[in-house]
Amino acid sequence: MLVVFKRTANEGDLDGLLDVLKREGLVGHVSRGVERTVVGVVGQTYPELRDKLEMLSGVEEVIPISKPYKLSSREFQSWNTTIQVGDVTIGGEVITIMAGPCAVESEMQLMETARAVKAAGAHILRGGAFKPSTSPYSFRGMGEKGLKLLAQAREETGLPIITEVLTPGDVEMVAKYADILQIGTRNMQNFILLDEVGKAQKPVMLKRGMSATIEEWLLSAEYILAQGNRQVILCERGIRTFETYTRNTMDVSAIPIIKKVSHLPIIADPSHGTGKWYLVGPLALASIAAGADGLMIEVHPNPDKALKDGPQSLNFDTFRQLTSQLASVVSAVGRKVR
Amino acid sequence: MLVVFKRTANEGDLDGLLDVLKREGLVGHVSRGVERTVVGVVGQTYPELRDKLEMLSGVEEVIPISKPYKLSSREFQSWNTTIQVGDVTIGGEVITIMAGPCAVESEMQLMETARAVKAAGAHILRGGAFKPSTSPYSFRGMGEKGLKLLAQAREETGLPIITEVLTPGDVEMVAKYADILQIGTRNMQNFILLDEVGKAQKPVMLKRGMSATIEEWLLSAEYILAQGNRQVILCERGIRTFETYTRNTMDVSAIPIIKKVSHLPIIADPSHGTGKWYLVGPLALASIAAGADGLMIEVHPNPDKALKDGPQSLNFDTFRQLTSQLASVVSAVGRKVR
Amino acid sequence: MLVVFKRTANEGDLDGLLDVLKREGLVGHVSRGVERTVVGVVGQTYPELRDKLEMLSGVEEVIPISKPYKLSSREFQSWNTTIQVGDVTIGGEVITIMAGPCAVESEMQLMETARAVKAAGAHILRGGAFKPSTSPYSFRGMGEKGLKLLAQAREETGLPIITEVLTPGDVEMVAKYADILQIGTRNMQNFILLDEVGKAQKPVMLKRGMSATIEEWLLSAEYILAQGNRQVILCERGIRTFETYTRNTMDVSAIPIIKKVSHLPIIADPSHGTGKWYLVGPLALASIAAGADGLMIEVHPNPDKALKDGPQSLNFDTFRQLTSQLASVVSAVGRKVR
Amino acid sequence: MLVVFKRTANEGDLDGLLDVLKREGLVGHVSRGVERTVVGVVGQTYPELRDKLEMLSGVEEVIPISKPYKLSSREFQSWNTTIQVGDVTIGGEVITIMAGPCAVESEMQLMETARAVKAAGAHILRGGAFKPSTSPYSFRGMGEKGLKLLAQAREETGLPIITEVLTPGDVEMVAKYADILQIGTRNMQNFILLDEVGKAQKPVMLKRGMSATIEEWLLSAEYILAQGNRQVILCERGIRTFETYTRNTMDVSAIPIIKKVSHLPIIADPSHGTGKWYLVGPLALASIAAGADGLMIEVHPNPDKALKDGPQSLNFDTFRQLTSQLASVVSAVGRKVR
Repeated sequence: MLVVFKRTANEGDLDGLLDVLKREGLVGHVSRGVERTVVGVVGQTYPELRDKLEMLSGVEEVIPISKPYKLSSREFQSWNTTIQVGDVTIGGEVITIMAGPCAVESEMQLMETARAVKAAGAHILRGGAFKPSTSPYSFRGMGEKGLKLLAQAREETGLPIITEVLTPGDVEMVAKYADILQIGTRNMQNFILLDEVGKAQKPVMLKRGMSATIEEWLLSAEYILAQGNRQVILCERGIRTFETYTRNTMDVSAIPIIKKVSHLPIIADPSHGTGKWYLVGPLALASIAAGADGLMIEVHPNPDKALKDGPQSLNFDTFRQLTSQLASVVSAVGRKVR
Repeated sequence: MLVVFKRTANEGDLDGLLDVLKREGLVGHVSRGVERTVVGVVGQTYPELRDKLEMLSGVEEVIPISKPYKLSSREFQSWNTTIQVGDVTIGGEVITIMAGPCAVESEMQLMETARAVKAAGAHILRGGAFKPSTSPYSFRGMGEKGLKLLAQAREETGLPIITEVLTPGDVEMVAKYADILQIGTRNMQNFILLDEVGKAQKPVMLKRGMSATIEEWLLSAEYILAQGNRQVILCERGIRTFETYTRNTMDVSAIPIIKKVSHLPIIADPSHGTGKWYLVGPLALASIAAGADGLMIEVHPNPDKALKDGPQSLNFDTFRQLTSQLASVVSAVGRKVR
Repeated sequence: MLVVFKRTANEGDLDGLLDVLKREGLVGHVSRGVERTVVGVVGQTYPELRDKLEMLSGVEEVIPISKPYKLSSREFQSWNTTIQVGDVTIGGEVITIMAGPCAVESEMQLMETARAVKAAGAHILRGGAFKPSTSPYSFRGMGEKGLKLLAQAREETGLPIITEVLTPGDVEMVAKYADILQIGTRNMQNFILLDEVGKAQKPVMLKRGMSATIEEWLLSAEYILAQGNRQVILCERGIRTFETYTRNTMDVSAIPIIKKVSHLPIIADPSHGTGKWYLVGPLALASIAAGADGLMIEVHPNPDKALKDGPQSLNFDTFRQLTSQLASVVSAVGRKVR
Repeated sequence: MLVVFKRTANEGDLDGLLDVLKREGLVGHVSRGVERTVVGVVGQTYPELRDKLEMLSGVEEVIPISKPYKLSSREFQSWNTTIQVGDVTIGGEVITIMAGPCAVESEMQLMETARAVKAAGAHILRGGAFKPSTSPYSFRGMGEKGLKLLAQAREETGLPIITEVLTPGDVEMVAKYADILQIGTRNMQNFILLDEVGKAQKPVMLKRGMSATIEEWLLSAEYILAQGNRQVILCERGIRTFETYTRNTMDVSAIPIIKKVSHLPIIADPSHGTGKWYLVGPLALASIAAGADGLMIEVHPNPDKALKDGPQSLNFDTFRQLTSQLASVVSAVGRKVR
């Protein structure tokens, strides 16, 4: 952290800063320039310190020079993290395809979909048993009954399952059934929940908050990592902008950025990222071309009868088309499909 | 809800829609225009239905004509909701001032602040015992010990207290101490938590999510109201935009909008809304001028030593200046200060 | 400007930077810390230099420590700029009210409005003769004929006039009629036009671009100031966010920020800032409470028949109500109405 | 357009609407529902009409049902527009690569770059002679001298040239040299300039405004088309969001959306879209995978010495790598490289 003083700052201001640093257990290295004095802060700092120093008398600006996240950074670990789920490896050379319905609605809907996505090349089955919904009057999922259906679908197809956990009290129960725990966009900063999945012995897929910066996203990953769970997967699913044509604006550039600054695998979710089924294919291809380690795609036997998010779901035919198109883009960027 | 067909739609498309509506238990009123056919949907609809209908063959667009929130709307209740907390009435003619430190840090810090804000005219004491923090390495609050200090401050000063609850498992415990439960911006869509505070017998102040639309905010209020708790207070605290000078962009226009579309009281939080203490005063005055029912202001004995959010906190002097300035703006818009 | 090197940077990287600085005519002051080396750059820098230095080998980050705008900053001029237009002073103790129709539509519409706004207390008459319109099929203004009507309205009422100029080729002609030249939001970065009004001998009111940061806005003001025209007025008119209830989100906090960092007067335009007439009053009061030097309000004899922006226009009655309400808020913040 | 009345609306409100429609030369088709009355508006409407009707007494909402742009829509022309520039066809099966420096700086810099990008497979040479710059103190381009250098580069390499025109007064001069006129992001709503290039006999590439919706962008294209110039190319270059890691957020989903709603070709500019050279490659591949008709890439012999936008420019080596990587993605999505 660098503290830049105003031109008009005096020795008292400098002493004031050095006092504060001492109280924080930090050391200040003073560097007097022609026009200004700058102090380098050495020791264990934290994000709020910046704001605190910035309001001291005489201080013009405080500049953080090391990133606030550590365990998720490439500086901390230079090689890519890979995560093993059954015989699927997430984050390696091979692209991972997660697919399934937004919400588990019935045994028939789920089994039918599980078989279809497996046949079309998916590696992991997705399906929500607990659904966050903006309105209290909407469908909120089948609960544990849905988890049991997911386990049954795994039994039959051999596909590992990923499903969302909404609240700390449910982590243990959901972890009993799921192979990967999913943290949804609205819970990216539900820190108690992050702590809790950080203690679970299961991989966690952390969706980006719809208005979260990349740094905040990595800090949320840090919560999970700091509890000792190093099996974290990131998932880009679109951010909120002024554009109203799409439900969200898929931030495809987040993919190569994550690859550069972090060692964690990253999955793209073009279904939520766009909100429209006819945009899912193009954005899926784009995400792979940009370096994503995999995709999460919503598939439903009858999207127009889906209880949740029908308009962004592919049906079996369009999903099959996508997986076959995908193969050539995957190999064009030097990756593989299983 | 109105379903507008494309010019090129045919009778089969219309029948398809009517079938779907029948399955949903809804009725479609068909109106054939010169160029297009439009169908009015009558019955109990829900937000996701719009998306579902929009993807049917031949459909151009679906237009919701009634708002998705009900209990929070002025149509449902034309008069203003007022909430009684001790002898403070929130939402009436008199402006409510909530003030105190961002986080409870120690007995001395809290007692000193409680006395100072009371002396300066505050009606309710704020203070966080459980703090959400973007980084796992930052201060996360004193927990129940902090709640006890708040209760002690209430004992001494007579000020009712408002404090944040972060997770469903804590609601009962926090409600034992607090007079008002606060739901923070990151939890605006933590629906399980909303359900839980909806069951509590305490007023709830719901902060706007930093990227939530006004409609989503009211839908979150709806969760609490739908559980039977009608004591809901809204709090505008700034939204996320491209501007980087301020931490958030305080959406002052949300204040008169809420007043128009809802009967719930609305409080403005210029401390979080701006993130800089020297903007708190101007935005506090602006919020009152725009019609807010009250203010929530961060005050700390030594902002430069605060463990959380020091740069946006007023000290005792600047808080006193604000409350005295406030009086004339309050009466300029026909409201009162106690 | 401070250049922060990576921990892994070597002497060659440092030499590379010093070479670049030399070529730019700048001097680098080297400061070697425990973990990193930091170089302070002294001399006349420019915004793009930052990006250039940031891509040099070994460089972690470049931090600008002086603001890129100069003439518009409070550091350059500590006292408030005031601008004299006839007997109206903009930027002093007295609040300035500019009002009139969005577009000049006819002699009768303009004269009637001019008389009404004058009677209600306006000091300057606004009216567009050249209108930017998102669609080529919409009304684009009366052109010079509209300017002549504005001049005629000034003749009759004595109110100075403000009107928009859209393109460099029109500056001379518009300046012949107008007392203040207005640069619209879509032209905030039309740099050729800024140069041109910078050469005119008339005050210029520069609206904030709908997605411009405060720094970019001040840099656009800098264009005008740098040409020698020191009579610049800023106008906040709302920014683009994800919220769809309002046309724009009025950034009320920009008002005290401008007052802090710049000496230029600032006017608030709640008509464009909200896009809804029933929000104009509350946001006008809020803007004054936050420190604005004046208001620009759209007024139309029959808003529901207006050719442009009817829904955000007040009629004569609601405008009169606003100006009378305004007086008490103005005095509550220690300002005056003429 | 559909006008939806409130439940509480009465016959007088309906008559009021019908009167307004009559005055506008429009016809209203009344449809009385169980709860509400809806009126379909037939005839030549315009965007502002919506707002005007929305404020009439008793009106709840006005819904536009036809898109405000016409000539640029797929409904107007179902086949893809292709544009011939020398022997390059933009918008057909073959991908077009435009490359060159952000700004023309010298004969040597331009010639060297022109030869290098040609050798690496580029089809069109880009280079700015007139540069918009946020600060008046920055480099603003070589002007006509730069245009002459571009013409000389075309002479030598055979590459057609694209260059930006900033102001209506320059269109004729720039068109004398350029093969394609470029309208920059800050001028997307410079309507006088759009009119002027609409009258030119040269293709125009229209960049998306950094805060423009897709609809506004197509309305700006409409200005050019409406003047009779049908050779319009769209260019996605990133939009402004809260994310600060990238200069802009490249809206990759805009590519398949444009392909769906419009017949105009679309080019992706990942250099401006990201602002960082190491993101250019991944986003270029992503854009092609998403369906773009071509790319615009900044290339500079020495990015660290560039006068403009060095950090987002590729050098000759990285550009060559990109074009060779590109070939396999292009063929993976069934397109061709020349």
